[in-house]
Amino acid sequence: MNLITLTTDFGTRDSYVAQMKGVIAGIAPSARVLDVTHDVPPQDVAAASLIVAQIAATFPPGTVHVVVVDPGVGTQRRILAAELDGQRFVLPDNGILTRVWHKAAHRRLVELTNAAFWRRVQSQTFHGRDRMAPVAAHWITGTPLERFGPPLREPPVLLDLSEPRREHDRIVGQIVYVDHFGNLATNVPGRDVQGRRVRAIQAGPLLLHDVCRTYADVAAGEPLALVNSSGMLELAVNQGNAAEQTGLRPGDPVVVLFDHAPTAQ
Amino acid sequence: MNLITLTTDFGTRDSYVAQMKGVIAGIAPSARVLDVTHDVPPQDVAAASLIVAQIAATFPPGTVHVVVVDPGVGTQRRILAAELDGQRFVLPDNGILTRVWHKAAHRRLVELTNAAFWRRVQSQTFHGRDRMAPVAAHWITGTPLERFGPPLREPPVLLDLSEPRREHDRIVGQIVYVDHFGNLATNVPGRDVQGRRVRAIQAGPLLLHDVCRTYADVAAGEPLALVNSSGMLELAVNQGNAAEQTGLRPGDPVVVLFDHAPTAQ
Amino acid sequence: MNLITLTTDFGTRDSYVAQMKGVIAGIAPSARVLDVTHDVPPQDVAAASLIVAQIAATFPPGTVHVVVVDPGVGTQRRILAAELDGQRFVLPDNGILTRVWHKAAHRRLVELTNAAFWRRVQSQTFHGRDRMAPVAAHWITGTPLERFGPPLREPPVLLDLSEPRREHDRIVGQIVYVDHFGNLATNVPGRDVQGRRVRAIQAGPLLLHDVCRTYADVAAGEPLALVNSSGMLELAVNQGNAAEQTGLRPGDPVVVLFDHAPTAQ
Repeated sequence: MNLITLTTDFGTRDSYVAQMKGVIAGIAPSARVLDVTHDVPPQDVAAASLIVAQIAATFPPGTVHVVVVDPGVGTQRRILAAELDGQRFVLPDNGILTRVWHKAAHRRLVELTNAAFWRRVQSQTFHGRDRMAPVAAHWITGTPLERFGPPLREPPVLLDLSEPRREHDRIVGQIVYVDHFGNLATNVPGRDVQGRRVRAIQAGPLLLHDVCRTYADVAAGEPLALVNSSGMLELAVNQGNAAEQTGLRPGDPVVVLFDHAPTAQ
Repeated sequence: MNLITLTTDFGTRDSYVAQMKGVIAGIAPSARVLDVTHDVPPQDVAAASLIVAQIAATFPPGTVHVVVVDPGVGTQRRILAAELDGQRFVLPDNGILTRVWHKAAHRRLVELTNAAFWRRVQSQTFHGRDRMAPVAAHWITGTPLERFGPPLREPPVLLDLSEPRREHDRIVGQIVYVDHFGNLATNVPGRDVQGRRVRAIQAGPLLLHDVCRTYADVAAGEPLALVNSSGMLELAVNQGNAAEQTGLRPGDPVVVLFDHAPTAQ
Repeated sequence: MNLITLTTDFGTRDSYVAQMKGVIAGIAPSARVLDVTHDVPPQDVAAASLIVAQIAATFPPGTVHVVVVDPGVGTQRRILAAELDGQRFVLPDNGILTRVWHKAAHRRLVELTNAAFWRRVQSQTFHGRDRMAPVAAHWITGTPLERFGPPLREPPVLLDLSEPRREHDRIVGQIVYVDHFGNLATNVPGRDVQGRRVRAIQAGPLLLHDVCRTYADVAAGEPLALVNSSGMLELAVNQGNAAEQTGLRPGDPVVVLFDHAPTAQ
């Protein structure tokens, strides 16, 4: 395994991402570096947390994921190296790890303190290049996790994720992510709605009565609900942009009403 | 050959592209994955068709090109694996292949039906990750084309490309693509205008009298016509944006008037 | 070493960058190609010059950097292959090399004239694909620099970089670059302000009295000055966009006032 992924809020106009790749290439010449995205909204730790959980579910074990969304760079916030169910992460301790942490059965975490694995010249404002990239490169070439610093004695910083509220005949969740197509992902797991008789799904101006299988189940331009490729309830418009058409945004409530209460499964 | 290219309309903000790369890395760890673009306008099959023809002309034989512009995902539309003159493609059967198909002398196509080569967990909305990426990865590692499904008995879905109308003293074509610089590519082949005496090229507000060799043949800010790097007649503004300056868009007509009718070549 | 980097103003919507990668893959199948950025503002040679200097400082020796910001494509402007302190460059002779050139102790440059290393089919408008990409690919596979063309007898085209004016109690510099976050990099080296007592930093509507260590040294939304990760004085807003908040742009003056004149160091 020689794969390193990069997820940042650096954008793609500047040389920041390439500087990280240059540092990695100097330490681990045979490592392959894949961009996940550099368009995380600036300092949006919650969005980064979702993206990281999605990629952790698809990459082979041993991949090192470097995530630099780091509003606290240069402060006392810690930087972590973490191995969770075989996926590896190097990232600031600011909540990005939350979703992966909650799902993981096996967790090993250290705080990056051993400057022997950092870049010789250090800045106060670019730890992605000066600390995270070199540690990822050393890790992928076989340096054991323990060398990078002491084990964490307490959990990392975790975001307070709002869970959907499950009542007798309804689930009250919320929009959590808007993608490039304007599709609106919710925090309602698909398994909570599949196999039940849905009476209505209500969110902002939308009132829907079915959970469809795929976008083309409705006419072009029509709204629909479906279970998306991450297994979550999603609101969308076939060949259109649901976020623009509805004005819905992360945090807005989504109510699913059922005909009957859930039966034991 | 261990090269896979990706062309999608997924944008670069979300984790969709990276999820495909993760699936490929799990099956074909030594494959190298190159991004062509993820900024195909959403569901724009015609633009994808042009881009795919341009890259097929430059990559070495055996490269696998995965193209996911797929408004019909989850419906009965087919997914194809195709080998055309040595270039390989995995893509939905919705017309993307049109331009490559028309140019190809040797064609082998199958429909993806053999789920043994798909991702174990399937979604209804992300066949790029669940079917196309894994088939591309298996193909690049040596699995023969025939294993992925049965041969196609009829041609794939083909777009109705409008060809330029060639008359005695003129060619009437149209704008087919606007690039990042605002350059306006037409469907008029350069060989149709080179070596002939051009009287006028007319498109929207533009009236030009020459086919230039390169952009800097006119002053900065001035419009010109030239034969572009894909061999097609193009309208441009030196160091400027022709699309913005002229308002011309795909579908708008372009007329080339000649002094004399063509001579036999 | 088998690393080639690409820096262009081609954007990421079209197939231009991928066409270059296809040409490279055909000549140097084991070369790895990294994108630096394709979002250099169109024809902005000065911005390209800064980006190239930043990456030259982080990549391992022997890396070949291809830079295609080339408003003079197809004219008599030369194309260069250059080795400067172990970093290699293939780029038009239009000033992009300026900052790397000034810092370099060891310089070898040739003009690309040997068409044996170019693409067989040539266009007048895409020398990035037809000349620079194939030369970079041949160089990374071991072809000696001298084979590509004759040595340069005179310096390359160099930009007239405005240096900050250093007076008794002040330095008058200017904004030179705005990054993705809206941070405003200046041409004032950090070492000129560090260790001196700063009375004021003035630029447009900003009046600051300190050089901070990092962004989070001030409250969110507040402006600050710091020495950035490239070692230059920078104006920023913690978790905000300084360019938008201040209206400052490249070329605008920045004055640093000191309490005392500099002491000998």
